[in-house]
Amino acid sequence: MRKPDRGTLLILTAPSGTGKSTLVEMLLDRVPELTFSVSYTTRTPRPHETNGKDYFFVDEATFSRMEEENKFLEYALVHGHHYGTSEELIEQHLTERRDVLLDVDVQGATQIMRKRPEAVSVFLLPPSFQELRRRLEGRGTENAETIRRRLERARREVHHCPEFNYIVVNDEPEETYEEMRAIIIAERTRPARRKTTINAIISTF
Amino acid sequence: MRKPDRGTLLILTAPSGTGKSTLVEMLLDRVPELTFSVSYTTRTPRPHETNGKDYFFVDEATFSRMEEENKFLEYALVHGHHYGTSEELIEQHLTERRDVLLDVDVQGATQIMRKRPEAVSVFLLPPSFQELRRRLEGRGTENAETIRRRLERARREVHHCPEFNYIVVNDEPEETYEEMRAIIIAERTRPARRKTTINAIISTF
Repeated sequence: MRKPDRGTLLILTAPSGTGKSTLVEMLLDRVPELTFSVSYTTRTPRPHETNGKDYFFVDEATFSRMEEENKFLEYALVHGHHYGTSEELIEQHLTERRDVLLDVDVQGATQIMRKRPEAVSVFLLPPSFQELRRRLEGRGTENAETIRRRLERARREVHHCPEFNYIVVNDEPEETYEEMRAIIIAERTRPARRKTTINAIISTF
Repeated sequence: MRKPDRGTLLILTAPSGTGKSTLVEMLLDRVPELTFSVSYTTRTPRPHETNGKDYFFVDEATFSRMEEENKFLEYALVHGHHYGTSEELIEQHLTERRDVLLDVDVQGATQIMRKRPEAVSVFLLPPSFQELRRRLEGRGTENAETIRRRLERARREVHHCPEFNYIVVNDEPEETYEEMRAIIIAERTRPARRKTTINAIISTF
């Protein structure tokens, strides 16, 4: 397949517990030319997380300085922790014709969609509220209070899904992966992302 | 995967000789819930063509009557023959939640895109003019004059490709199939095509 002139900025969001991390892993493993945008955060690393791979873990002072220096495409406060996406890192990937996958919360997604109308936004929706609760409880990593907060937040977030370009319902991971992959491949064939190729072909006519 | 509320109207166009028929066959064979819209034409069937499957072959009088009765979503005169797409047949498929693939010339595609802004349009582009000529000559079915006319027409048609939603370059049939399939799957996840599903899920929150 022909490479586009420039990568696609992909925004993926979902209520906590929907299964976004599993989907991101499948996509990064299997879709060529797809890169993950590593975010900055002030929260503590979870046991399996690596600095520079899952997140850049920074302290509050560093985060504030970056914020003041306008380094973030978006930043948000989620469950008491700061999260931010570096604009410079993203630009580099896009210029090098790699698609960039941004895993952000709904608040962050909305900010990026306003700043970057060319970005492609996907809302991953759980099959139902009951199923989301079941998944959050099944994880066994959060206490009842945290689960309650996440569900409350999910209640607000789902109403934003019609603002997104695509809505994928996460019934089954493999099907969800297929739909998300289709969105990525399809978006590479947009005229705006293939101007150089198209002009080169038309010039032979 | 969840069925959308309503099928997608897919418009596929390409200069003659690009390989559109091969792609259409692959898609109809392999993509579930995809239907081909059989067009009406006044041209003579080719040896391998079946009435009602490839086209509805009708005489000039029948075609004119249908045209007067506003039965066509689009109609065009191509190389001296009339071609028309029945609106009623398409509506039926879309309502029954099947995607409808319209194989039309650029003129017809432009008409439909104006009438049906919700349609998804794809321009299939040959890798170059030289390759298009090689393919047309390789067929061995048309004489030099017909090939010359088709190439002349292609020269005008390719300039319309940026007006389409997607542009697929037909370098290699299997890759072209993959891109086109991705477009079809991705378009099924558009919020506008999933209102019922989405509202049902949101209502559980």
